[in-house]
Amino acid sequence: MKKKAVILFSGGLDSTTCLAMAKAEGFECYALSFDYGQKHNSELERAKELATLFGVMEHKVVPLPLHEWGGSSLNDSKLSVKDHNEDGSIPNTYVPARNTIFLALTLGYAEVLGAFDIYIGINAVDYSQYPDCRPEYLKAFENLAKLATKVGVEGADYKIHAPLLHLKKAEIIRAGIDLGVDYSVTVSCYRADTFGRACGNCDSCAYRKKGFMEAGVTDPTVYF
Amino acid sequence: MKKKAVILFSGGLDSTTCLAMAKAEGFECYALSFDYGQKHNSELERAKELATLFGVMEHKVVPLPLHEWGGSSLNDSKLSVKDHNEDGSIPNTYVPARNTIFLALTLGYAEVLGAFDIYIGINAVDYSQYPDCRPEYLKAFENLAKLATKVGVEGADYKIHAPLLHLKKAEIIRAGIDLGVDYSVTVSCYRADTFGRACGNCDSCAYRKKGFMEAGVTDPTVYF
Repeated sequence: MKKKAVILFSGGLDSTTCLAMAKAEGFECYALSFDYGQKHNSELERAKELATLFGVMEHKVVPLPLHEWGGSSLNDSKLSVKDHNEDGSIPNTYVPARNTIFLALTLGYAEVLGAFDIYIGINAVDYSQYPDCRPEYLKAFENLAKLATKVGVEGADYKIHAPLLHLKKAEIIRAGIDLGVDYSVTVSCYRADTFGRACGNCDSCAYRKKGFMEAGVTDPTVYF
Repeated sequence: MKKKAVILFSGGLDSTTCLAMAKAEGFECYALSFDYGQKHNSELERAKELATLFGVMEHKVVPLPLHEWGGSSLNDSKLSVKDHNEDGSIPNTYVPARNTIFLALTLGYAEVLGAFDIYIGINAVDYSQYPDCRPEYLKAFENLAKLATKVGVEGADYKIHAPLLHLKKAEIIRAGIDLGVDYSVTVSCYRADTFGRACGNCDSCAYRKKGFMEAGVTDPTVYF
């Protein structure tokens, strides 16, 4: 019987590559997406499409009213997404505790499924300095997962796979293409419109664009 | 200006005592409850009532569809809550990763509020052996909170207060009564009916009943 893995799955470039990698590793894949009030929620439609393309066993879209307290330009109507800059600070697209919230829910789902492998597409190279994308954060969550769960106490270890952690965006794209990922379906843009078209200027677009350029691959993104 | 605290608040005996303690410590209190498909959701009505009684600044009830994957007799229609026994195993009322999910969401809300103090009413004495109620779990979450957040990276420390951790149920009750808690409003029972009346036989009722007895206080719980 195949081992199960749960993939945190936004429908973006990184998490779709992650899903392709988990599948290539031979896991039976379960995908979890979150509808947390993000303005670019066309990513969720693409996530559904991609989940079907990859033949995941189950794809759940969990509603999470994080916009109720906001605090991020991704889901707070009072804040706007800024154009990309390289000043090294954490931009206002940071969603307070987002990966902790997503990983916690994934952990619960995984425990019920009997899965001990969780995939998350975080990257600490071409990224926006988000604290919850760093190796030390990941290590701390893995430690917590063991202490937090019944199966952990009974001896099981959770493995949080972050296969993109130390890759450049261009390397991620090359790896995905080798695995057959059709990046034209993925949506990364923080300002994506209802058709999933991208702005080309936000942080997420900037890293993605540069990635395709450096990878020497034609950028399939549709910009508005 | 008063410091803010966020209280994980179910409307039960423990978390209500916690709220009273946070208030007595001088915090401006914000309460977070979770509608996670629990069958005993009359606790949420009591939580609203108690939040008003304690004059919290804001009380949010966050819908969380954990019953979609179930796995606990508290929110899975295929499982039933058992009567209390003392066999020392983790009972099926355990909700996979519940406290991690609740704390993660509380952390996000706290970061947006600018609160660095989180109260959770966990107890490692008169409890059901849940892994996410132990001191080592709590320590691991505190460590994670610092690494996970923008304010953590910028130097702030989150304090997860668990003032009931090492108290017997009778001591919790005495402390609450000293602080003016009206326990007749609180609902602890895992089988509570729509009126908030208790079964008297589940784990939660057993610990609560024994607590009132040992505290020498008349049990104000209404049993059905």
